Amino acid sequence: MVYVGVIGAGLCSSEVSGWAEAVGAGIARRQGVLICGGMGGVMEAAARGARREGGLVVGVLPGNDRKEGNPYLSLSLATGLGDARNAVIARASDVLIAIDGGYGTLSEIGLALKMGRPVIGLGTWRIESSKGPDGGIIAAADPEEAVALAFREAGRIRPLER
Amino acid sequence: MVYVGVIGAGLCSSEVSGWAEAVGAGIARRQGVLICGGMGGVMEAAARGARREGGLVVGVLPGNDRKEGNPYLSLSLATGLGDARNAVIARASDVLIAIDGGYGTLSEIGLALKMGRPVIGLGTWRIESSKGPDGGIIAAADPEEAVALAFREAGRIRPLER
Amino acid sequence: MVYVGVIGAGLCSSEVSGWAEAVGAGIARRQGVLICGGMGGVMEAAARGARREGGLVVGVLPGNDRKEGNPYLSLSLATGLGDARNAVIARASDVLIAIDGGYGTLSEIGLALKMGRPVIGLGTWRIESSKGPDGGIIAAADPEEAVALAFREAGRIRPLER
Amino acid sequence: MVYVGVIGAGLCSSEVSGWAEAVGAGIARRQGVLICGGMGGVMEAAARGARREGGLVVGVLPGNDRKEGNPYLSLSLATGLGDARNAVIARASDVLIAIDGGYGTLSEIGLALKMGRPVIGLGTWRIESSKGPDGGIIAAADPEEAVALAFREAGRIRPLER
Repeated sequence: MVYVGVIGAGLCSSEVSGWAEAVGAGIARRQGVLICGGMGGVMEAAARGARREGGLVVGVLPGNDRKEGNPYLSLSLATGLGDARNAVIARASDVLIAIDGGYGTLSEIGLALKMGRPVIGLGTWRIESSKGPDGGIIAAADPEEAVALAFREAGRIRPLER
Repeated sequence: MVYVGVIGAGLCSSEVSGWAEAVGAGIARRQGVLICGGMGGVMEAAARGARREGGLVVGVLPGNDRKEGNPYLSLSLATGLGDARNAVIARASDVLIAIDGGYGTLSEIGLALKMGRPVIGLGTWRIESSKGPDGGIIAAADPEEAVALAFREAGRIRPLER
Repeated sequence: MVYVGVIGAGLCSSEVSGWAEAVGAGIARRQGVLICGGMGGVMEAAARGARREGGLVVGVLPGNDRKEGNPYLSLSLATGLGDARNAVIARASDVLIAIDGGYGTLSEIGLALKMGRPVIGLGTWRIESSKGPDGGIIAAADPEEAVALAFREAGRIRPLER
Repeated sequence: MVYVGVIGAGLCSSEVSGWAEAVGAGIARRQGVLICGGMGGVMEAAARGARREGGLVVGVLPGNDRKEGNPYLSLSLATGLGDARNAVIARASDVLIAIDGGYGTLSEIGLALKMGRPVIGLGTWRIESSKGPDGGIIAAADPEEAVALAFREAGRIRPLER
């Protein structure tokens, strides 16, 4: 069983929401567990897509009350950690798919890459270090490719954590 | 759906293990979600009992690798937070059952009571504040009563967090 | 340099406040760094005592804004972690002094003992495990003895973390 | 008093180390408190620069033992939180200076911007969202400008947290 983190902003356009829903559905069809931040926007759309296909969705919430989670979570875990819960999302996932996203998503991309978790990007941040373009984020052209890449990367031997 | 945290030590006697397994089974029979620390001892026995009855068990691990979790978890969440994950277990649970237990369990009892989560005790710590015996832990005589008390308390309106 | 955690409730009687102020002053006179939760009650009184003697006081706050700290902190660190910051206080301290205290203090006692940090108690929780009275908390009769015991214990080789 | 976070990798070139030392010295000359991750590379060089000028340096360590911190820390705080301590560094700082840096630094940039903390960049990550170049990181040309910008930004009214 592969645990796929889906990260993105709590508010998003309907186009991005459509991508997230397709990503969630694809993860569920491949029997993956979807880990997300449990709130709205990309998190909610991905959860909705996964549940439609009978998938299991875990929301790792920043706040104190699990009722704050979106209605599509199989499990809503209140952590009370605030933004530090982003580190839990990265750590708990075998691989992550970043969809569009704001600064919180950027932090999760950084945390995941630091922990050696592969990150697939779908219309998300482009990052360039002082040495030039950074190949850490694996770009996908559409939701189907994003899911396919995630399951391919999750099965690879990965380098040690940096 | 009620989220019941089961807390206890990573090493325990066979008697305590039997209690934990019965508690886990009871939670599953009442359709509760079992939240635990995901490691051995009480956590493993409770998870085994719940899975035997078809229940859902979430392990909230202190370490970085979800493969460290015991084999009875439905979901193994690596947090990488070390002992700070005890606060996540308390926060994510609607009610907790403390079974025997060491200092980590004591910390979870304190955190849960601080957060306004009811704590049922089965052969666990007795605590007495500077003002005298503290009624924070609700004592149960056996596993069945512990589970019954947990579901009763989870349904109550609770005072504001202290 | 010894880092001494002082733990206790955010509201306390004037008697307890006097103990905390004396403990803070004693830590500063011995050149210790005082680590606390940064809020009111015992934390504020201990900080005030330490600053009066020219000591260094660090507040490890649960919230997002360092201006929430009490006015006697040399350093006010906002963690945003909520109650999980209790684990940071225990981890950052070489030894802790628990003064009276509520459930948060109980959680810090448990976390500290779990981490192998000695805990000195001054009118604080009495704890008894399923095996009987637990000697984990070293009782002090007054603030002076609490400080003396803390510096004695901080210098000892301690057993491995449990 | 301004709390300035200095973030960067645990290993760095001698050129980057020189920048970090100059940044640390500049923060100390302006009476700022330097917050960092407490380890080697950029963190150690910045700490060394600040201590040379009599500054106060706090290391917020990922591990369990404060002796793991670099030798230039005024205060070495072991958090035991692993990479989640990055969120504490961002939260505890009024403003941050990112110097070169790896994925951990990228995560701290994301967390800080999410929390509404200004981030000054010195030869660090360039980030571009799906909407185009993102102006969140304020670029500095050299260490002196980085410090000047940090103190200017820390004094501004900032928009609400996003």
